[in-house]
Amino acid sequence: MTDRLVVVGGDAGGMTAASQARRRVPDTGELEIVAFERGEFTSYSACGIPYLVGDVVHEYGDLVARSPEEHRQRGIDVRTRHEVVGVDLGRRVVHVRDLDGGDEADHGFDQLVLGTGAVPVRPQLDGIDADGVFGVQTLADGIAVRRAVDQDKPARAVVIGSGYVGLEMAEAMTRRGLEVALVEAHEQPMYTLDPDMGALVADALGGVGVKLYLGERATAFETSDGRVRAVVTEQRTLPCDLVVLGLGVAPNSALAIEAGLGVGETGGIMTDERMETTTDGVWAAGDCVETWHRISHRPVAIALGTHANKQGRVVGVNVTDGEATFPGVIGTAVTKVCAHEVARTGLTERETAEAGIDSVAATIEATTRAGYFPGAEQIKVKVVAELGTGQLLGGQIVGKEGAAKRIDVLAAAIWNGMTAEELIGLDVGYAPPFSPLWDPVLTAARKLTDVVGA
Amino acid sequence: MTDRLVVVGGDAGGMTAASQARRRVPDTGELEIVAFERGEFTSYSACGIPYLVGDVVHEYGDLVARSPEEHRQRGIDVRTRHEVVGVDLGRRVVHVRDLDGGDEADHGFDQLVLGTGAVPVRPQLDGIDADGVFGVQTLADGIAVRRAVDQDKPARAVVIGSGYVGLEMAEAMTRRGLEVALVEAHEQPMYTLDPDMGALVADALGGVGVKLYLGERATAFETSDGRVRAVVTEQRTLPCDLVVLGLGVAPNSALAIEAGLGVGETGGIMTDERMETTTDGVWAAGDCVETWHRISHRPVAIALGTHANKQGRVVGVNVTDGEATFPGVIGTAVTKVCAHEVARTGLTERETAEAGIDSVAATIEATTRAGYFPGAEQIKVKVVAELGTGQLLGGQIVGKEGAAKRIDVLAAAIWNGMTAEELIGLDVGYAPPFSPLWDPVLTAARKLTDVVGA
Repeated sequence: MTDRLVVVGGDAGGMTAASQARRRVPDTGELEIVAFERGEFTSYSACGIPYLVGDVVHEYGDLVARSPEEHRQRGIDVRTRHEVVGVDLGRRVVHVRDLDGGDEADHGFDQLVLGTGAVPVRPQLDGIDADGVFGVQTLADGIAVRRAVDQDKPARAVVIGSGYVGLEMAEAMTRRGLEVALVEAHEQPMYTLDPDMGALVADALGGVGVKLYLGERATAFETSDGRVRAVVTEQRTLPCDLVVLGLGVAPNSALAIEAGLGVGETGGIMTDERMETTTDGVWAAGDCVETWHRISHRPVAIALGTHANKQGRVVGVNVTDGEATFPGVIGTAVTKVCAHEVARTGLTERETAEAGIDSVAATIEATTRAGYFPGAEQIKVKVVAELGTGQLLGGQIVGKEGAAKRIDVLAAAIWNGMTAEELIGLDVGYAPPFSPLWDPVLTAARKLTDVVGA
Repeated sequence: MTDRLVVVGGDAGGMTAASQARRRVPDTGELEIVAFERGEFTSYSACGIPYLVGDVVHEYGDLVARSPEEHRQRGIDVRTRHEVVGVDLGRRVVHVRDLDGGDEADHGFDQLVLGTGAVPVRPQLDGIDADGVFGVQTLADGIAVRRAVDQDKPARAVVIGSGYVGLEMAEAMTRRGLEVALVEAHEQPMYTLDPDMGALVADALGGVGVKLYLGERATAFETSDGRVRAVVTEQRTLPCDLVVLGLGVAPNSALAIEAGLGVGETGGIMTDERMETTTDGVWAAGDCVETWHRISHRPVAIALGTHANKQGRVVGVNVTDGEATFPGVIGTAVTKVCAHEVARTGLTERETAEAGIDSVAATIEATTRAGYFPGAEQIKVKVVAELGTGQLLGGQIVGKEGAAKRIDVLAAAIWNGMTAEELIGLDVGYAPPFSPLWDPVLTAARKLTDVVGA
């Protein structure tokens, strides 16, 4: 008898689950895998969209890791332009609409994977639906912004929100010759950093001519002839030809809620460690799920391709009678803002305060290579630990070439519960082209031990 | 009453101990610190010598982190050109010879730090003492090689031994326009890697024109007029104007042995975790000590500035009534061979076999950035784990820009006893300029889980 696995959503979470399942159970009739995707594309790099817009990547096809046709060749029945509009958990069927033909039909499943992704936050402001106001979530969104920049030759853009996507889009548009203004409600860009590290990002943005309006909130859009003409904030009006919304995303859990699946306080679909939802044989992976922060011990919903892939792999193993678990996250993230690399992991000082943890922090400046070695670049590292015990809770890095991926060793240290003192002893690689004798991460840990008060 | 701390050796181990002690006990009469160094230099980067020879670094002064004068300004009484020729543990005095004046004198100590470093391996071969045969250990050695290349305009060099120093010196001399031959007794360069990864290093060397003679041993040096003219191996004679010995180093523990301190099977000075030798109040740090390999559970002597600094810090804390320990090593090392970055940590497959551990390995090829991102470079990652449990034991990386320092996250994983499966779940940084969606290190761990047989 053939089992049928139905996947809802053709990007990272869902298709990784499908691919992993197919890898474990070859396409010989035992397991049928059907994936429904309402868009045209599958398995693409959403994180690459700013680079497509900035013309760092020239063709959108370069962002597609695996096309629907390639998935089909691997034994996954992908149906694009098909939207799953309902799930009946009792009858174990999904109700699917063919977006081109308009037909609707029920499809039965033995096991179901929800990989419905996230939806961009769109505040209810006058004019937000005007032409020229773009969200950046799907590859289709990215292609639309790219086309607008290529064809409409806009001169001025406003980006609203300064998370990773907002910053990367701001940089992309300065690369394309636009005047760019960035409107951010907080007093610093990139609120996932502490203010002192955020200030470095502000400097970097200013250095390439991005005009920053911090502590300002967009209140409306001026439009004419159905096109956006300006962004209105509490303080001013910023004329523009194009707007990018970078206000973050929320889990797309509408389908799950309607079906009666459990959804957590973050709005993400609840799952156990095996990524199974509150209903047996129904799984979820990617931006649509709620996961667990290992340091704050709180549920979080973090939209990131790397988590989606890991969760998809876990689902693909478990739906084929294997055993795998997703261990949660610690909020690691990296980005590049012009020549500056920015990284963070664990909790910031602000977040430890919010979590009610007494913490201490230390910040150091060093170089990415031995100081005397050509190409040595500046790097600033901040580490946060629990007061008294010295247990590492978080790290932030801002620097130039070679800075950001040093966050990984901090992430591994935090993940494993190391203290600042223990991190000092860690046997990391040293040679003059790669590091000062004390790696900047270890130097930060050294300084932290002076204040940890253990 | 003033305590007197005497330090033997003015480089990484000894001077870090002295500096750390002075930082904790300011120079107000409570603690006198005297350091004897038989050479002219203090606190220099021995690892930088190949870059001085290759003219990547132009002035030897750039390699000096802290001169004798700078140490004196910080309250450390440094006496260069003074050799400690004997230690009397009973009377607690060192016997010191002034290498310029010729005077000898006893100096009492309350606590003693041995930072006597290492000595290059020099096989007893005919002609080895001829002009033009260089070891590369001290900064004075480095200056001598640099001067020989600058002034004598040698056309051909032979490097004997292909550890890090040998490879870096071979590259340095090709940069200076010399024809370079490399003679290595093993069948691969860089025997600290497995053969498959060593082969990649051989390719890199060949690519810049270094002629490799593998599986060959130098048996003698041809000389005339007191100068080296050729290296003779079992198979051939290699005419040359200059020879560099890169056969590794041995702990310089002669003084410790003579004094009656315990020395281990590696030839290094034995210490406890606090870096105290077998005699109370006598400490050791740096290339002269024997330390502990946390994965093989065997004593090792690894000459590396980063260990020396960490050990020196531990000594500096402990001699000033603090409490610090050195946790041992896992054999992490990185180097650059032309455009190729090479890194290793933990145990190779060969080393697990030697240690009697049943292991499995997996090797993957990936890119350092997202495949579509400009500047994405090749990277090959090999990971080794214990059969059955999947506990990570070692990692090796060969690749281009951005490859090598990824060894740190592997080092942290191995250090903390993570399994391959656990490493897959680790929350490392991802963004297209820095990594494919699955970091190459995680991809390697994924492949490893397929064979671990747990």
